[in-house]
Amino acid sequence: MSIQTLFSSPLRVVNVGIESFKEACVQAGAEAVQVDWRPPVDVAPDAESILAKRQARIEKANQKVLDIIQAGTPKLVGLDIARNVIPGMTDNTILHAGPPITWDRMCGPMRGGIMAGLVYEGRASTIEEAEALAASGKIKYAPCHEHGAVGPMAGIITPSMPVMIIHNEKFGNRAFCTLNEGLGKVLRYGAFGAEVTQRLKWMENTLYPVLKAALAHTGPIDLKNMIAQALHMGDEVHNRNRAGTSLFYRAIAPAIVTTCENKEDATAVLNFINGNDHFFLNLSMPACKAVLDAARDVPGSSIAVVMCRNGTDFGVQLAGTGNLWFTAPAEVPDALYFAGFSKDDANPDIGDSAITETGGLGGFAIAAAPAIVQFVGGSAADALRYTHQMYEITAGESRMYQIPALDFRGTPTGIDVRKVVEKNIVPVIDTGVAHKQAGVGQVGAGIVNAPMGPFVKGYEALAKMLK
Amino acid sequence: MSIQTLFSSPLRVVNVGIESFKEACVQAGAEAVQVDWRPPVDVAPDAESILAKRQARIEKANQKVLDIIQAGTPKLVGLDIARNVIPGMTDNTILHAGPPITWDRMCGPMRGGIMAGLVYEGRASTIEEAEALAASGKIKYAPCHEHGAVGPMAGIITPSMPVMIIHNEKFGNRAFCTLNEGLGKVLRYGAFGAEVTQRLKWMENTLYPVLKAALAHTGPIDLKNMIAQALHMGDEVHNRNRAGTSLFYRAIAPAIVTTCENKEDATAVLNFINGNDHFFLNLSMPACKAVLDAARDVPGSSIAVVMCRNGTDFGVQLAGTGNLWFTAPAEVPDALYFAGFSKDDANPDIGDSAITETGGLGGFAIAAAPAIVQFVGGSAADALRYTHQMYEITAGESRMYQIPALDFRGTPTGIDVRKVVEKNIVPVIDTGVAHKQAGVGQVGAGIVNAPMGPFVKGYEALAKMLK
Repeated sequence: MSIQTLFSSPLRVVNVGIESFKEACVQAGAEAVQVDWRPPVDVAPDAESILAKRQARIEKANQKVLDIIQAGTPKLVGLDIARNVIPGMTDNTILHAGPPITWDRMCGPMRGGIMAGLVYEGRASTIEEAEALAASGKIKYAPCHEHGAVGPMAGIITPSMPVMIIHNEKFGNRAFCTLNEGLGKVLRYGAFGAEVTQRLKWMENTLYPVLKAALAHTGPIDLKNMIAQALHMGDEVHNRNRAGTSLFYRAIAPAIVTTCENKEDATAVLNFINGNDHFFLNLSMPACKAVLDAARDVPGSSIAVVMCRNGTDFGVQLAGTGNLWFTAPAEVPDALYFAGFSKDDANPDIGDSAITETGGLGGFAIAAAPAIVQFVGGSAADALRYTHQMYEITAGESRMYQIPALDFRGTPTGIDVRKVVEKNIVPVIDTGVAHKQAGVGQVGAGIVNAPMGPFVKGYEALAKMLK
Repeated sequence: MSIQTLFSSPLRVVNVGIESFKEACVQAGAEAVQVDWRPPVDVAPDAESILAKRQARIEKANQKVLDIIQAGTPKLVGLDIARNVIPGMTDNTILHAGPPITWDRMCGPMRGGIMAGLVYEGRASTIEEAEALAASGKIKYAPCHEHGAVGPMAGIITPSMPVMIIHNEKFGNRAFCTLNEGLGKVLRYGAFGAEVTQRLKWMENTLYPVLKAALAHTGPIDLKNMIAQALHMGDEVHNRNRAGTSLFYRAIAPAIVTTCENKEDATAVLNFINGNDHFFLNLSMPACKAVLDAARDVPGSSIAVVMCRNGTDFGVQLAGTGNLWFTAPAEVPDALYFAGFSKDDANPDIGDSAITETGGLGGFAIAAAPAIVQFVGGSAADALRYTHQMYEITAGESRMYQIPALDFRGTPTGIDVRKVVEKNIVPVIDTGVAHKQAGVGQVGAGIVNAPMGPFVKGYEALAKMLK
């Protein structure tokens, strides 16, 4: 084509890079297509070639990990007090969300949650006392994830808190999670004060024993089956848990009636669960944790078994790299903010709830939950697009968790760090947003992208191990 | 194009009519498109021109009907025994699904339901006695629809049965429906025998008083809101009611605990509802009935306020044609049959549940319920296609009932008989299928098309009135 022909013909654009340039062409009346191309990610010079050379070994290890994930059978088997059941929990231990972090680097909502926890424990009578104790060096902080546990948002677990026990029956391991506090002023968003403490005490003294007795009556509750049903009912079990909460409620209510002698307590517990559509989040999270923990320590595997955030750092662990943490700064979400709040108010991404995405749920399964886009911004087509994109970076498709709108295709499962890095596509996470100051609470929700940094580090570390 | 060129070029087919011809072309390797064209429907010679001439008047009347439908506020306000609350119900009345029908023309499952009802009432001690009484002329049969009521499948309401009372608060009218019996041997599918009677007695003596007391405690339950939520949770509230049942359960359970003195009864009632995901159907149906009854008797309107089937005839009523019934033979559904059953076993379409489609739900809202296609055959794309097609024959879109997968577009609402006839598109109905013999039960489920006949008759009758 001569240059004359080019300029005398209608403009037809093939755009690579920033998509807004294509949009501008279209608005100007030109025909334009966008090439789905991203610049390659910078990695250590020999990492890619090592992983390419070890491909057969990695694929074999990944298949093993995927088989373990598919075969997992998470069941709610009981409740107990954290100090009695969480391995390594002492009276001076406080567990938190995300990768390891020291007090001085913790964000506002995590500090707020810890202070609320110390008041709840009776270790301090004021928030000021709690802050002094928290910073004194007497408290041992550790990630929930290093103790078989997970926690939403700040993810604080103190020794006296009741936890639910999830048993991965197939592999014998257990996972733990606190009970969801509901909305309003809650510890997990870093709130503290009398209302927070009072609610935690009610949970310890009423909710916990009532649920414990009811569960002893029902026997183990199959969470895998419940999550699968919830996906057919518009949940992705991270930011939308209305169906899961309903199904759990239906399963437990008759047993509460049978086992609870005090009518007012029974009614209060039912009303509490009914009033909190996120109740099931604290079951979907440890269900994923129990399944993924069984897949840890499979040498050679490039599949992620942990993604989590402490509000300062975003952390990743791989099945093939043992207990190593790969971290990068957590990002402030581009979320849909509640009236009166903006991105300026927001804390960087926080919480262990990205364990749902790690397990093939949450943002990865958002095509099953089109109703959520109203809550986090976007369209139903976006929901399908997010899930479709996650198939690009996963090792397989769930045999149990299906998406009706995709004709019951299994959810994208098992994040392969090689695909993340080589395709330059990071996981999407469907999350809530906390205020950056302690004591405020939730300010928004949205779909966020994981940072690339931890995946690059994991990729390089795996290459080093397989050299 | 010369004839030579035609035969030497690759075959490119534009097909009009039977779609399988296009498929054959495609299979033979040709490029083919299907034109979405249907032959015009035969109507009385002057009907079309009269309705065209009266268009302005009809549009105005239809707008009024649509406004009434949109403004309706169906609430569950109480329960009572049928004879106490259903207008015109006598001790010798038995109400049934669909348009009016005499005993001699009734299908097997309807006769079975009536016989089961007479045994339940103590009017007969054996099925043979019941059959003799049913055929004796002593029993007065009438459509539920003519008594402000609706019933799924056989739709039998006898005088002693408990019914739920739905109040359309905005317009002051009420609708009635029995309590859903659950699965297995049930009267509504025409089953009879000790198991059926025993369950009906338990419903009268335990379920009814427990629910009645609980509802007095909660106060009215807003069904419009609950249906709207259920659509966000994968129900279309006709053939899939798992979410609606869950939401109702959550709303009523704490009140059951508070008001029921007998723990075993409370547990039994909760287990009964929990064990029956169709419980909510008997609420979604009268909710639609209450809303549509308020829109009856709007002269000039071409919008349907009733679609129903008695297993022999399919009946339609229009807002603009008063109490006239327009009927045609009910068809045997092309359904997905349960193992061991086929179309040969099936009864023609039966039940008042098509009131949900008449109200913009059920098959019209099936795009909100992609999980249902697994139950009735078809793909997720089919679900979208059915709903899209129903926009072609409806007067408006619901302001309350939305479809997340269509970016919260309102469901197609208000079937306009003019559009049905002039576009030759009949309503789709998402339904269950009964065995044709009394006493067997459900044999399948599927998406069925309404017959065109009643719509043609309604179209012609409206034209006659507007001449």
